Amino acid sequence: MKKKDLNIVLIGAGNVASHLSIELLNTGCNILQIYSRNIDSAKELAQKTNSDYTNNLNLLNKNADLYIVSITDNAIKGIIQHPDFKTDNIVHTAGSVGIEVFKTHSENYGVFYPFQTFSKGKNINFKEIPICIEASNKNFEDFLFNLANKISNKVYKMNSEQRKYLHLSGVFASNFANHMFYIASNILQEQNIDNKILNPLIQETANKLLQLSAFDAQTGPAVRNDTESIKKHLDLLSSKPEFIQIYKLISEDIYKKHF
Amino acid sequence: MKKKDLNIVLIGAGNVASHLSIELLNTGCNILQIYSRNIDSAKELAQKTNSDYTNNLNLLNKNADLYIVSITDNAIKGIIQHPDFKTDNIVHTAGSVGIEVFKTHSENYGVFYPFQTFSKGKNINFKEIPICIEASNKNFEDFLFNLANKISNKVYKMNSEQRKYLHLSGVFASNFANHMFYIASNILQEQNIDNKILNPLIQETANKLLQLSAFDAQTGPAVRNDTESIKKHLDLLSSKPEFIQIYKLISEDIYKKHF
Repeated sequence: MKKKDLNIVLIGAGNVASHLSIELLNTGCNILQIYSRNIDSAKELAQKTNSDYTNNLNLLNKNADLYIVSITDNAIKGIIQHPDFKTDNIVHTAGSVGIEVFKTHSENYGVFYPFQTFSKGKNINFKEIPICIEASNKNFEDFLFNLANKISNKVYKMNSEQRKYLHLSGVFASNFANHMFYIASNILQEQNIDNKILNPLIQETANKLLQLSAFDAQTGPAVRNDTESIKKHLDLLSSKPEFIQIYKLISEDIYKKHF
Repeated sequence: MKKKDLNIVLIGAGNVASHLSIELLNTGCNILQIYSRNIDSAKELAQKTNSDYTNNLNLLNKNADLYIVSITDNAIKGIIQHPDFKTDNIVHTAGSVGIEVFKTHSENYGVFYPFQTFSKGKNINFKEIPICIEASNKNFEDFLFNLANKISNKVYKMNSEQRKYLHLSGVFASNFANHMFYIASNILQEQNIDNKILNPLIQETANKLLQLSAFDAQTGPAVRNDTESIKKHLDLLSSKPEFIQIYKLISEDIYKKHF
């Protein structure tokens, strides 16, 4: 298979499908076709990747070297069981879905999981994104490693069980950390303080972990058992019972881990 | 006052005192003396800043242009009320302590609050650190602004009430976000997965906020109301009841804010 001529079909047109297909295009792959149930989403991504598009599984291009299923976890099983969906050389990009979802569907199948948070309108350097590979056989594994190595410097072999825990850890490290950033912004907004003032702190909180463990990097009232500051903070939050609950629960857990 | 000859005494030798005094030294100030109750800490920082040190308030150098009190919130009041502690031109560096703590103590007093998380062994670019200034009079305010502008490009005027909320927001944005990183590492450690794999995700979660609001940047199961993934995650956490509590509470709050 010539490296420049890899032909790929994307099943899905969401954040992961968009970022991944554009990156694959930029690395010399052809995106043959975008499939999405939503024809407008399919069309929009197809225009960015110079590809065909469809919302009809019967019209799926049969000539691709690889089919990448990049849709919500719950939708993956549905599409694979669809009688019109017949492909080999297929991967999904989901953290929480095991490789066995493809078992009765194809011979060459696997997982191509980029461990990152993708948002519309935010470009990202793929070279730094860990890509976790799992495959039904060694040949297909090599094929996926070759492809992953084209777009990233951090390619890992990982089985479905480990990948589930990795995905779970990502929910804490990204989604839940981001919610802490959201609450911080919300507190400032209500005081008419421009929340841009948070950015250096947020950047440094992340940067610290390049040098220190999260345990060693911890600072603030809870890790000092500074009950007076904690009491002051809970008073300031008196109109926000949901933030009080979160403040108490996380502070208690920080305290328990350190004392 | 000649810029190069500013003489400063630091009360405290912890993380903030250390980072700040070294930065002030590097910008051309003289650090006359370090005071700490713990003589070893005072000595250690004094060696790094070419200064004297003491653990005796009676021996405090009387000739400084500025006294910076950088100790825990609870200790500030105690030291100010100490009969041997007599100084003018004094600031503290605490987010949660109001300026009025100095009211009966001096004429020129204020707050010099660097809004950042400081850890031992982690260098940091002060130019990016927001420094929040409050002062008892305009002259001293100008003096503090001049000093702050030497070390940072982001100097703000902020009153005590706003600063309390800013400090609270920092607990969420830094301490609590860091605890999410800790939990993520902990989950991976138990699966023997090298937690360095988290770093690109953590960096990007922080970097996103340079372009998007935390609300718009949110991804993951809770914001998609993907109850199936959430259930799988709670199953994986079955041996960690404290993480289950945190997972549920934060996921519910993300859901409520978005639906």
